[in-house]
Amino acid sequence: MIIQKEIILSPKSRGFHLITAEILTNLTELKSFSKGFAHIFIKHTSASITVNENADPTVRADMETFFNRAVPESDIRTFQHTLEGPDDMTSHIKSSILGSSVTLPVTDGSLNLGTWQGIYLCEHRNRGGSRRLVVTIYGE
Amino acid sequence: MIIQKEIILSPKSRGFHLITAEILTNLTELKSFSKGFAHIFIKHTSASITVNENADPTVRADMETFFNRAVPESDIRTFQHTLEGPDDMTSHIKSSILGSSVTLPVTDGSLNLGTWQGIYLCEHRNRGGSRRLVVTIYGE
Amino acid sequence: MIIQKEIILSPKSRGFHLITAEILTNLTELKSFSKGFAHIFIKHTSASITVNENADPTVRADMETFFNRAVPESDIRTFQHTLEGPDDMTSHIKSSILGSSVTLPVTDGSLNLGTWQGIYLCEHRNRGGSRRLVVTIYGE
Repeated sequence: MIIQKEIILSPKSRGFHLITAEILTNLTELKSFSKGFAHIFIKHTSASITVNENADPTVRADMETFFNRAVPESDIRTFQHTLEGPDDMTSHIKSSILGSSVTLPVTDGSLNLGTWQGIYLCEHRNRGGSRRLVVTIYGE
Repeated sequence: MIIQKEIILSPKSRGFHLITAEILTNLTELKSFSKGFAHIFIKHTSASITVNENADPTVRADMETFFNRAVPESDIRTFQHTLEGPDDMTSHIKSSILGSSVTLPVTDGSLNLGTWQGIYLCEHRNRGGSRRLVVTIYGE
Repeated sequence: MIIQKEIILSPKSRGFHLITAEILTNLTELKSFSKGFAHIFIKHTSASITVNENADPTVRADMETFFNRAVPESDIRTFQHTLEGPDDMTSHIKSSILGSSVTLPVTDGSLNLGTWQGIYLCEHRNRGGSRRLVVTIYGE
């Protein structure tokens, strides 16, 4: 059994956002699967998807702090792809470090995540707008 | 055909560990699949899973050296999520850089890895304890 | 329905290369799938696979600039795995940061990528030679 659908996320500010609930609201089909997995793919190259801590918002703030330091916008001086501003090439880099998709196990009609895990949308642009996901669930 | 199971790894010290054999011991079902893939997911946000060199233990040591320098514990001065100590937020960051799952091709009853590839458990905490994986194999 | 095949890429120079067209030429089976996903796995530990911008070649050049700075070859002074030269351990590190596979949605016989997305082969060695992929497509 396979289902596939596009989900358009509400626009997010730059930074790391917990989107587990927003995804689940759009994935009522999940409860038909006893076991399988869900693949969540983002159709953009300046935002990314990852799994991380779901409880304390300061984790998301510290992720933003870290990645802004690790991939600094001042690097624009050393880049060639600069027309869209200092947050563009850095966003491409962050998206490849963090990844454009996550694959998650599905068990008994739910995402089989650890107690402290959630899904993050990582918005790397200052004004990224709505982001489009393709979710594919495969299983029985 | 799909199988799904949880595997509890033996506790590992902080660092990078080759766990291909420990996983295969718990995946005798693999030999029933002629082609497909295996998804290995870790249910934690301070340890991660990656694929890397399977032969020379110094690769694992150098990975630990590099990531401790790239994501230094001294960064705690700039973080808000600090209650669990200096190895906590750094572990969350490393887990998103390295990833919470790997997907591997399965061919003729085995993982279809390159000659030099193995599966790593990356334990980022000083005392991470046992780590829980969910493995899903899909194929025919 | 599942298909699985190996693809041997033409040798690439060190750096980031757009390989979407080279993969599609070898994946005519894709058009038989109305929905599903494609898993593209690289059987090496010193090259990697990622998704990023498909239009402007300077993005690929800037990716190489960034990762050479983030994972510098001068680090060899601090590594133990040094026999194969300064571009070896750095290649292992880059391959785990960027990842050994991508999973992409398949819809209506095509890869369901965003307008600006393409598949990159990231060649981290000075002389990496031909790289071998395993592609598994699953769906209906």
